Amino acid sequence: MRIILCGFGVVGQSLARLFDSRADDLYAGYGLKPRIVGVFDSMGGASSPSGLDLKRLVDVKKEYGTVKKYATAKSMSGVDMIKNLDADVLIETTASNYKDAEPGMTHITTAMKKRMHVISVNKGPLALAFPSLMELAIYNQVMFRFSGTVGGGTPILNYAKNSLKGEQITSFSGILNGTTNYILSNMSQGMTFRAALKDAQNRGYVEADESLDLDGLDAAAKLVILANWIMGMKVTMPDIKCTGIRDVTTSDIKKAAKTKSAVKLIASCEKELVVAPKEIPADDPLCVNGTLNAIAFTSEHSGTQTIIGKGAGGMETASSILRDLLDIRQEIAGK
Amino acid sequence: MRIILCGFGVVGQSLARLFDSRADDLYAGYGLKPRIVGVFDSMGGASSPSGLDLKRLVDVKKEYGTVKKYATAKSMSGVDMIKNLDADVLIETTASNYKDAEPGMTHITTAMKKRMHVISVNKGPLALAFPSLMELAIYNQVMFRFSGTVGGGTPILNYAKNSLKGEQITSFSGILNGTTNYILSNMSQGMTFRAALKDAQNRGYVEADESLDLDGLDAAAKLVILANWIMGMKVTMPDIKCTGIRDVTTSDIKKAAKTKSAVKLIASCEKELVVAPKEIPADDPLCVNGTLNAIAFTSEHSGTQTIIGKGAGGMETASSILRDLLDIRQEIAGK
Repeated sequence: MRIILCGFGVVGQSLARLFDSRADDLYAGYGLKPRIVGVFDSMGGASSPSGLDLKRLVDVKKEYGTVKKYATAKSMSGVDMIKNLDADVLIETTASNYKDAEPGMTHITTAMKKRMHVISVNKGPLALAFPSLMELAIYNQVMFRFSGTVGGGTPILNYAKNSLKGEQITSFSGILNGTTNYILSNMSQGMTFRAALKDAQNRGYVEADESLDLDGLDAAAKLVILANWIMGMKVTMPDIKCTGIRDVTTSDIKKAAKTKSAVKLIASCEKELVVAPKEIPADDPLCVNGTLNAIAFTSEHSGTQTIIGKGAGGMETASSILRDLLDIRQEIAGK
Repeated sequence: MRIILCGFGVVGQSLARLFDSRADDLYAGYGLKPRIVGVFDSMGGASSPSGLDLKRLVDVKKEYGTVKKYATAKSMSGVDMIKNLDADVLIETTASNYKDAEPGMTHITTAMKKRMHVISVNKGPLALAFPSLMELAIYNQVMFRFSGTVGGGTPILNYAKNSLKGEQITSFSGILNGTTNYILSNMSQGMTFRAALKDAQNRGYVEADESLDLDGLDAAAKLVILANWIMGMKVTMPDIKCTGIRDVTTSDIKKAAKTKSAVKLIASCEKELVVAPKEIPADDPLCVNGTLNAIAFTSEHSGTQTIIGKGAGGMETASSILRDLLDIRQEIAGK
């Protein structure tokens, strides 16, 4: 399987490591031989029709900060690579952006028009244009997968779509952003908002643009993806009523604690799509602490089911990409 | 799809109601037209090659306590029904028994030999003979499904088997019996074991043979099923080290509470297969209260993921049977 990889940050590098360490077992167990024929980061790219050497790629990135130095040849731009290289699957891992979703949006649409299957862990394009991207995929008869956009390595989308076959999910709500959960958990231990934010930043939990976490945009993007994929809605970011955690005070948290509750940033799909801080009873399975994510699906006949897991992490997200790739491999093989 | 239904207790009746209420949508959405051609309880049976009337079946059971009165004809025994009726799927819902697994064991093996697909929510046969039942199914080229045996309506088996495609689950542990969890939760609120047991009995949570809950047999049976299905082990009940909750004292629970922990009956698959009371930190996602079930799967690259849901309930378990049936329908249709 020939792959173009857009972005070579933590997730891209974890994926290269995963492919490398599991090469034998992926081939023996699933007939999958992933070859990265092109990869690019913001400074340039590297390509080879027979597949790049994964270890070398990681080493070059580490030494020079860009994969451009992999070869001495003049490197192509990302979009040129997608236009000119022959590949089966595009994997989009560049940073999410909720203004115009670029450069991910152009990567994905260009690849689909070239009849490449697409795996995205970049939430931007999905948040701003889920319905039209899905149409574009169908029109071009390609598969579009994005397991890693919600829950990182925790297969939330797959669970809701496939494990509850024959069941109608009637509503759901969840903690979809680990960073704000970490901050709120620390505040419930007595920290101020400022101190808790600082601590989260020191640990590298906060996005470069802190607004994505604090103002609920990351959670809202995930809610858009869930609403489209699980509930069949056709919605985008402007359809979400979104309030972040900047105005949550220590006294709000103390007040909640008095009734054995905790304040959490909850994304919910009931009558409307809302992201907002909400009091949750401490003994509700949804009430998880630290950087954990949790989501509770309520279905017609199977009751309410909660899934809890780490919502992020390079290797976890890479493992979700591998699952999507195996899924595409199986569909192609007509299994 | 022609079905023989073994047992017509809470689960069987819920299934009849579910089939009846969803007849149109099952046919339109999945091409599934379930016809119960035979059903029997401990007092007798009713059959009709063109399918029994579901509403009437439920009414007759309610009025007479047995489906035998559905028709005036002499009713067949359960095993005779399986031997003589033409059917595609056998659904086994009689009570679990961990001594000889009868009558479920005979129902299942007889049906498989007659090339019927089998869905079982009866744990007995699986607990005592999982490896050989699986071989029998393969030998006779029939499908064998048992989603409802673990987690009731919560699709735990499916999640672990399918949602983590390409991933190796390395260990798991969970609260698999809601009744003991209810008793231990009540004890943590200050009740004695006796009082908590009494309360659970009054609510109808405790098996007629209380040993199945209190001595951990129900949890052990589920552990056998998980170990075989998820981990590929070939084990049966005698392979489980099993300790129940009869010896858990109020002072054990108070001691745990001092370190912000709670005593739970944990079934775990790590180096060995164990069911035993264990202290769990209160903020561990696994530490759920009331009758809830919870299971945490640890995988190689996707971290630890916890699923929480109601572990029992007639309609919930019926919904798991429907999922299995849709699964079989799709496999037959070669989709």
